[in-house]
Amino acid sequence: MKLGKVVGAVVATTDVAGIDRPSYLLVEPCDTAGRSKGRALIAMDLVGAGPDNIVIVAEGSSTRQTPLTDKKAVDAVIVGLVDRIDVANRRGGHP
Amino acid sequence: MKLGKVVGAVVATTDVAGIDRPSYLLVEPCDTAGRSKGRALIAMDLVGAGPDNIVIVAEGSSTRQTPLTDKKAVDAVIVGLVDRIDVANRRGGHP
Amino acid sequence: MKLGKVVGAVVATTDVAGIDRPSYLLVEPCDTAGRSKGRALIAMDLVGAGPDNIVIVAEGSSTRQTPLTDKKAVDAVIVGLVDRIDVANRRGGHP
Amino acid sequence: MKLGKVVGAVVATTDVAGIDRPSYLLVEPCDTAGRSKGRALIAMDLVGAGPDNIVIVAEGSSTRQTPLTDKKAVDAVIVGLVDRIDVANRRGGHP
Amino acid sequence: MKLGKVVGAVVATTDVAGIDRPSYLLVEPCDTAGRSKGRALIAMDLVGAGPDNIVIVAEGSSTRQTPLTDKKAVDAVIVGLVDRIDVANRRGGHP
Repeated sequence: MKLGKVVGAVVATTDVAGIDRPSYLLVEPCDTAGRSKGRALIAMDLVGAGPDNIVIVAEGSSTRQTPLTDKKAVDAVIVGLVDRIDVANRRGGHP
Repeated sequence: MKLGKVVGAVVATTDVAGIDRPSYLLVEPCDTAGRSKGRALIAMDLVGAGPDNIVIVAEGSSTRQTPLTDKKAVDAVIVGLVDRIDVANRRGGHP
Repeated sequence: MKLGKVVGAVVATTDVAGIDRPSYLLVEPCDTAGRSKGRALIAMDLVGAGPDNIVIVAEGSSTRQTPLTDKKAVDAVIVGLVDRIDVANRRGGHP
Repeated sequence: MKLGKVVGAVVATTDVAGIDRPSYLLVEPCDTAGRSKGRALIAMDLVGAGPDNIVIVAEGSSTRQTPLTDKKAVDAVIVGLVDRIDVANRRGGHP
Repeated sequence: MKLGKVVGAVVATTDVAGIDRPSYLLVEPCDTAGRSKGRALIAMDLVGAGPDNIVIVAEGSSTRQTPLTDKKAVDAVIVGLVDRIDVANRRGGHP
């Protein structure tokens, strides 16, 4: 899974993913300090995440393993709201 | 999923993907301002997208989770036409 | 899917992929002008492609969605021979 | 699979992955000498790994092929604790 | 699939992949001349490969499509020992 930060939302009027009014959030991969690392992706929100939340994003076929996404055309979902990150033996705490 | 911009179309005469006359569009990954970010991919269009449309592209096994692509050899589909992108707390609005 | 150019072939004597004498072609990802973009991959040919052909490559689990590759250990197949590429609104025509 | 080094842990209070109190570890891809190579990912621990352990990480749909992860929304798991790495014909031993 | 060169082996004592004494080899992606291109991955050996062998590596769900890997937690396998590489129209023969 990937650590990410919610930076926005995407609204799409035409949608064949099979999900009624999906909540598509823009998530930037980030390090443990929340600093952006790479290009934002669009993940379906399953946990009620909001702007600036640090989240766990799952990708690929695993994203269909929830009641809401079963057999749906989604390839990235937010599966967790991060509470705490423990980084061992490091200066600054950001891998 | 990925944010992308439609930049063209690809016509292929021999095709074993199992889809009758697929609409293969060239899509460049882009940021929220529509600026190109990285190499174009070929995505099957499921929403009637056209040149310069900003779209949502799903990839991997999830792309087979629609009636049209079920059991077909496609690995990228356009699942949404983007209407609006809301970017929180940012200068310039492009992650 | 990916746009690629056929640049060679790979012959392997021991093979557990389950396919009788597979045709493994070396394909370089390319732009719409046929210019190489990145490292070559090995794709199983399903369309009779040859050197310098511009092709469409599908990857991942989708590659098993054809009679020849069903339940086989392949992760990239050539699913189309490109006939024409239309690029909209661009100088030089190469995303 | 990927060689990685455990550098921390992530605690998430809201979780839809379907796993009761998952152990999410931060793993940095590394070379055979344990040197960090690239961005950390979050992998579910299946082997009791701890800080600084060198581990084998499996990704994608394969991660659901264990009793604990069957039909769960995880896309990376730690499947092995590395005991020894043998590197052939090389100075310094780190690919 | 990917062209790679065997550069070592990884021994892991704790293993939940479901395979009895797997042979995990370190494989560096390489070009057609055998030159290293990018970070080594760990692939399960299915063909009896050894140091310096040039091999074909399959990744993703396709790796479970063999009797030995069926329903196992592996995401990369060596499916072929390369005998010969034919490169068309190129100086130096290495994509």
